[in-house]
Amino acid sequence: MPNRTVFYVSDGTGITAETFGNSILAQFTAKPRHVRRPFIDTMEKAAHVVSEINATGEAEGKRPIVFITLANDDVRSILTSDHCKGMVMDMFKAFVEPLEHEFGMKSNHRVGRFSDAAKSQEYNDRIEAINFSLAHDDGQSAKNLQAADVILVGVSRSGKTPTSLYLAMQHGIKAANYPLIPEDFERDHLPSSLAPHKRKCFGLTIDPDRLSQIRNERRPGSKYAAIENCRYEVNAAEQMMKRSSIAWLSSTHKSIEEIATTILRDIRPDRLIY
Amino acid sequence: MPNRTVFYVSDGTGITAETFGNSILAQFTAKPRHVRRPFIDTMEKAAHVVSEINATGEAEGKRPIVFITLANDDVRSILTSDHCKGMVMDMFKAFVEPLEHEFGMKSNHRVGRFSDAAKSQEYNDRIEAINFSLAHDDGQSAKNLQAADVILVGVSRSGKTPTSLYLAMQHGIKAANYPLIPEDFERDHLPSSLAPHKRKCFGLTIDPDRLSQIRNERRPGSKYAAIENCRYEVNAAEQMMKRSSIAWLSSTHKSIEEIATTILRDIRPDRLIY
Repeated sequence: MPNRTVFYVSDGTGITAETFGNSILAQFTAKPRHVRRPFIDTMEKAAHVVSEINATGEAEGKRPIVFITLANDDVRSILTSDHCKGMVMDMFKAFVEPLEHEFGMKSNHRVGRFSDAAKSQEYNDRIEAINFSLAHDDGQSAKNLQAADVILVGVSRSGKTPTSLYLAMQHGIKAANYPLIPEDFERDHLPSSLAPHKRKCFGLTIDPDRLSQIRNERRPGSKYAAIENCRYEVNAAEQMMKRSSIAWLSSTHKSIEEIATTILRDIRPDRLIY
Repeated sequence: MPNRTVFYVSDGTGITAETFGNSILAQFTAKPRHVRRPFIDTMEKAAHVVSEINATGEAEGKRPIVFITLANDDVRSILTSDHCKGMVMDMFKAFVEPLEHEFGMKSNHRVGRFSDAAKSQEYNDRIEAINFSLAHDDGQSAKNLQAADVILVGVSRSGKTPTSLYLAMQHGIKAANYPLIPEDFERDHLPSSLAPHKRKCFGLTIDPDRLSQIRNERRPGSKYAAIENCRYEVNAAEQMMKRSSIAWLSSTHKSIEEIATTILRDIRPDRLIY
């Protein structure tokens, strides 16, 4: 499917439309071009996007796919009118109307999903969790680990930092992370500052070849990056995780989203319910 | 709507289902309980979730709302059968079938949306952007600013760090951030290391009362947090942004998602197209 464009048109950030549209399009072997048009909250802006959609369709000879999340009926009607030559996928219409019936109430046609969230307790918790995760990145501070929701443990470059930041940003989880270093392997047990918090610990491991590749990008030719050293560290870390009976997984073939969701499911299932 | 539960059931992380479901439910004045059930990729796991849904519905006296993103027909059929007493919102069915017709091809019923992304170039760019943003947080390094896609500028605690990390994590944007400090206000122009990169700079400002409140949580009773000082810094920073003609916004009533999308739209519109 060359020369086909997908538009995401929203009165808010368009992130919902894009996330959803991407997961729909992942069901097809196709690489369309993506265009996100956020903050389309007036009829004028909507008309402008329709012109862009129509021009794109003429240039490509195929009608664009258009995912819309538009709460205001007047704005939405511009996109859903016959004048718009795209194939419009109205994400609200399909689900809001049945829910109005189920709940016995009208929807409020409120624009955007984040504005109301901003500055709420939940939102402030996310910001606080980001600050906590930054302050407790890479074993910087063993203080205050009792305030952590999760402590990620693993060798350097096993994926701990991006995962902790994602847990904080997306889920408001205070995620500390703690690197396992050669001294820990010589002592042959988890760092003593982690012992009181073993139930909150989650291990990340990684394929030694992949680890060596990642470390070589940072410090080419170093002992740190050498495949023998990576094999030694990964093996020692996995042995330690098994002996300590902490939950762990390999990050090699997983995205941070999948790692984060697995951690929540396995050690903080309460955070999947709210 | 007390005592009503919404389930998000997915063969992947469930993040797509949850993001979309939340934006639908934001159209109603209601605070249901949320339950996310990720990695439901076998008929056995699906049957287990159906039992949970049915038990919840009996306990609450109202059928749960169930958003599903399930690519496998066998797994999906367990949720959509009459045995499941929830109100099932099948997010794929409504959109995948019309697209099969439009594209003239069958969908591949592929499970999950992140697995394929993991370790792709796009994914590696995101991880690299996170590392870049961490290394260039809080003006830590003026080196390598030419590699930055965006440089956020503003007084301490105006929202620069969470926004840079979000830009990196969600969009693969290399976002540095640079705090404006009293010395900058005395010199009355943007820090000289930023001058060559003015077109990449984006300013964040914040209401002085809100800033004082945030700073007081960190350093109670300090001059740093005093309302007079916050008024002075915010005013001086805004004057500087105006004189420098850099784009800027107030973070006071905006979420990091909205701030990030506005930045992309205003100074990196190319990154909304890919």
